[in-house]
Amino acid sequence: MKGLCVCVCVCVCVCVSVCADLLPASCGEEMTRGFLQELVDILLGFICKSNQRSSKVLDFHHPHQLKEGLEGFSLDLPDQPETLEQLLVDCRDTLKYGVSTGHPRFFNQLSSGLDVIGVAGEWLTSTANTNMFTYEVSPVFLLIEEVLLKKMRSIVGWADDEGDGLFCPGGTISNLYSILLARYHFYPEVKTRGMGALPRLAMFTSEHSHYSVKKSAAVLGIGTENVVVVKCDERGKIIPAALETSIATAKEKGLVPFYVNATAGTTVYGAFDPLNAIADICHSHTLWMHVDAAWGGGLLMSDRHRMKLQGIERACSVTWNPHKMMGVPLQCSAILVKKRGLLQECNKLGAQYLFQMDKPYDVSYDTGDKSIQCGRHVDVFKLWLMWKAKGSDGFGSQVNKCLENAEYLYDQLQKRTEFELVFKNKPEHSNVCFWYIPPSLRSLPPGSDRDRRLHQVSAHHHSG
Amino acid sequence: MKGLCVCVCVCVCVCVSVCADLLPASCGEEMTRGFLQELVDILLGFICKSNQRSSKVLDFHHPHQLKEGLEGFSLDLPDQPETLEQLLVDCRDTLKYGVSTGHPRFFNQLSSGLDVIGVAGEWLTSTANTNMFTYEVSPVFLLIEEVLLKKMRSIVGWADDEGDGLFCPGGTISNLYSILLARYHFYPEVKTRGMGALPRLAMFTSEHSHYSVKKSAAVLGIGTENVVVVKCDERGKIIPAALETSIATAKEKGLVPFYVNATAGTTVYGAFDPLNAIADICHSHTLWMHVDAAWGGGLLMSDRHRMKLQGIERACSVTWNPHKMMGVPLQCSAILVKKRGLLQECNKLGAQYLFQMDKPYDVSYDTGDKSIQCGRHVDVFKLWLMWKAKGSDGFGSQVNKCLENAEYLYDQLQKRTEFELVFKNKPEHSNVCFWYIPPSLRSLPPGSDRDRRLHQVSAHHHSG
Repeated sequence: MKGLCVCVCVCVCVCVSVCADLLPASCGEEMTRGFLQELVDILLGFICKSNQRSSKVLDFHHPHQLKEGLEGFSLDLPDQPETLEQLLVDCRDTLKYGVSTGHPRFFNQLSSGLDVIGVAGEWLTSTANTNMFTYEVSPVFLLIEEVLLKKMRSIVGWADDEGDGLFCPGGTISNLYSILLARYHFYPEVKTRGMGALPRLAMFTSEHSHYSVKKSAAVLGIGTENVVVVKCDERGKIIPAALETSIATAKEKGLVPFYVNATAGTTVYGAFDPLNAIADICHSHTLWMHVDAAWGGGLLMSDRHRMKLQGIERACSVTWNPHKMMGVPLQCSAILVKKRGLLQECNKLGAQYLFQMDKPYDVSYDTGDKSIQCGRHVDVFKLWLMWKAKGSDGFGSQVNKCLENAEYLYDQLQKRTEFELVFKNKPEHSNVCFWYIPPSLRSLPPGSDRDRRLHQVSAHHHSG
Repeated sequence: MKGLCVCVCVCVCVCVSVCADLLPASCGEEMTRGFLQELVDILLGFICKSNQRSSKVLDFHHPHQLKEGLEGFSLDLPDQPETLEQLLVDCRDTLKYGVSTGHPRFFNQLSSGLDVIGVAGEWLTSTANTNMFTYEVSPVFLLIEEVLLKKMRSIVGWADDEGDGLFCPGGTISNLYSILLARYHFYPEVKTRGMGALPRLAMFTSEHSHYSVKKSAAVLGIGTENVVVVKCDERGKIIPAALETSIATAKEKGLVPFYVNATAGTTVYGAFDPLNAIADICHSHTLWMHVDAAWGGGLLMSDRHRMKLQGIERACSVTWNPHKMMGVPLQCSAILVKKRGLLQECNKLGAQYLFQMDKPYDVSYDTGDKSIQCGRHVDVFKLWLMWKAKGSDGFGSQVNKCLENAEYLYDQLQKRTEFELVFKNKPEHSNVCFWYIPPSLRSLPPGSDRDRRLHQVSAHHHSG
C-alpha cells in the first residue's frame, strides 16, 4: 500500500532568532511588511540606477578581492544570525558588486535589458513559490503554460490539434529533450534496455551550432564522436549538399543517422540554416528534424523577419528561448514537440505518490510525468504577463526595432576605419561581428601575426 | 577566427505600447516605481493573508472552469497590449486562484511554509537577472555558490581540499549528475564514444528510492531494466544483504555493476538507508556510492539528528535540496562531488565564445563548462541570505522543531481511533504516514476490500 496512504510531511517553516519577528510569527505582519518594503526600495533604486547611462555596468573586482571582504562585505556563512539591518546591507552590497544586466550599455551573450513587467512576473512567481508537477498544486500556472505552449506552436505553424511541449531550465536542456525524444521515437526500447540494444546512432549539426548538441550527445550516452559536424558557408549557414554527403558517409561507416539539428540564429554569427532544404533531406532519409531557434525564435513574432525561419513548421521539434530575443528575464526556454503524447511516453514512470489516476479532476494536467525533472520551477508567468503587456504585436515591434538597431550599428561600423566587419553582408539577426583595430595595428598586413594581436585586443574588450 | 571577434547582440529592451511609460523609457522612473510598488502591495497582502489560518489554502476550480474565464480572469494572450491596471488585476487573480503554498495548513509534497527572507532573496535574484556561466557576468553569485558548496561539503564531512559541486534545477537533475559522473569516472571514453563502447552497466537503488534514479537511467541511455531494485525492510530501509545478493546476481548475468544509490530520507516513509553498510559494500566491489539526501540532507544541520546520516562522508556524491527540509523557496538543489575536477572533465566542451582562456582574471570561476546547462539560473542567493538570517545554528533549531512537530503528530494519531498509523515506530524524519478511517469503515475486517475503500478515502483527501 506504499504511497497510497496520506503522508504528511510536517516541515512547517519555523523561524528562529532574528526572523522570529517576521511571519509566520504571530504579530509578524508589521515587521514583514517593513523589511520587504525596505528591500523593495533598494531594488527600485537599483533598477533606476541601472537605467542611467552614467552609472557603471560593473564595478569589477578580482575573485580574491571579493573573498577578502571589500568594505566589510563578507560572503561567509555565520553560525549565529545577522540582524535584519545587516541583511539589507548584504543585499545592497550584492547588487553593488554585481553586474547591472539591465544597463543600457550591458552587451553580453544574447540577453540584455531588464523588462519591468518581466521582473514583476518573477516577483509574483517567487512569492507564490509553486512547483509545476500537478494541477492540484499549480492550477493557474499549468494552464498558463498550456496557453503559452499552444500559442507558440501555432506561431511555429503547427496545426491546432498537434503538438506538445514544456518549459525547461535553459536552451541546452530543451535541445537535450529533442534528442531524447527523437531517440525514443525511433527506438522506444532504449528507455528500458539502454543504448546497448541500439545500433550505433549518428546525429548531424553544423559547425556553427550551439555546443549543447554535442553536450547532450555526451549526456545521453550517444557519444560526441557520433555527432557529425556539417560544413557551413561563409555566412555560417549549413550547406545542404554537405549534409547529404555527411549522411551518406556516416551510413557507409555503418552508423545509423536519426537526428538533424538545424539552427535558426547561430550563437556568434546569428545565421539561419536553410530549413526547407534540411527538411527535404530529413524527409527523404526519415530523420528527426530539430530546429534550435533558442536565439532566432523571437523573429517569428515579426511579420517582417519571420520568413528567415521558413520551413520551421516542418520540424519535429523546436527550441525557442523567450529569455533571449524576447527580453524575458532568465530563465524561460521552451521545447516544442510536434508529435503529441511522445513527451509523456518517453519520460513517464508513474510515481504513485504524485500521479494517482483516481484524483477528482482531469489528471491530464498533471504534467510532472512528462518532464525529466520531478519538481519544476515556474518559468512561464513572467512571459505570460509580458505578453499581456505588449500583445503579440508589441513583441513584433520590439524585434523589428532590435534588428533596426543592429543594422544601424552595422552601417556605422562600415563607415569607420577603426573597425573591421567580419562580414560584408547586412546582419540577418541582431548579431554584429567586428574587430576593433587599434591605431598601432592599422598598418599591419593581413596574416597570422595581425590576427593574433587583434585577438588579444578583443579578448580584453570582451571581458572589460 | 570564429568566436574570437567581438560579437555584439543588439537586443536592447525596446518597450512599446503600455510599457512605453516604464523604464527604460526616459522619464519612466516614476511610473516604474508606482507600478512595482502597487504589485508589491498585492504581494505583501497575499503573504499576510496566506499566513492566516482562516483563509483558504486553495479556491479550487476545475481546468475547464478556469479556462472559461472566471469572473473575467482571462488566460488568453492578446494581440494588443493590456493596461497596467489590468495587469495588476491579472496578478491579483493569478494569486487568488492559485495555491497558498505558504499557508500554515498547506501540506503537500516535501515543501511548505514561505520563508520571508527566502522570498526577499528571490526578489533580489530576479531583479539582478544574472546568468551563472562566467565570472565576468556573475562575480558575486559565483563566489556565493562557492562559499555555500564548500560549507555544505564540510557539513557532509569531506576534507577542505576535496570536492566540487553545482546547484541544479531540482533533485532529479542532481541525481542525474551523480550517475553521469560515476559513468564517466569508470569509463571516460563514454563521453566521445557513447554507451555502445561500454559493457552492459548495472545500477542499484532501493524499492523506496525516488523515481529520478530510474528516470535518469532512461535519459542517460543506461536503460531502466539495468536499474536493479533492492529490497527494503519494513521501515523502508535498504537491506544490505539484499544489496550484496543483487550485485552478485547482476554479475552472474554478465552485467557490470558501477553505481549504488542510497537514500537518506525516502519520499514517502522518510527512511534512512544504512549508509555505512552500503559504503562497505561499495568499497569491496569498487562501486560509486551516491547518497540521495534531497529530503534528508537538512538533518545534517542538526546535532541531534545528523547521526541518522552516519556514513554519508564515505559517499562519492551527494544530492541535497535546501528547498525541501531547510525551507528555501523553490528551486534550490545541490549536487556535491568528492572527486575534484571530475565535473569539469566530464562536461566540458570549451565553447570559445564563452570560455576564453586568456581573460584577465582567474578563469577557474568560469563554472559554465562544469554544468550540463549553458546558462544557469541563480538558485544560491536566497539560501545564502537565509543562512545569514538564521545562522547554521538557526537551521539546526528549525530542523529540530520540525521533527518535534512530527513526533507530536505521531503521538496524537496514536491516541485516536479514527486514524491508523502505517508504522508503529516513531518517525525518523518528519514524514508521518497514516490512514484516515471514516466511521463507516471502522468495523470492517482487514483485507483487500477495506484497503480498496481506505484508498478511495485517502485519494480524495490527498487532492482535497
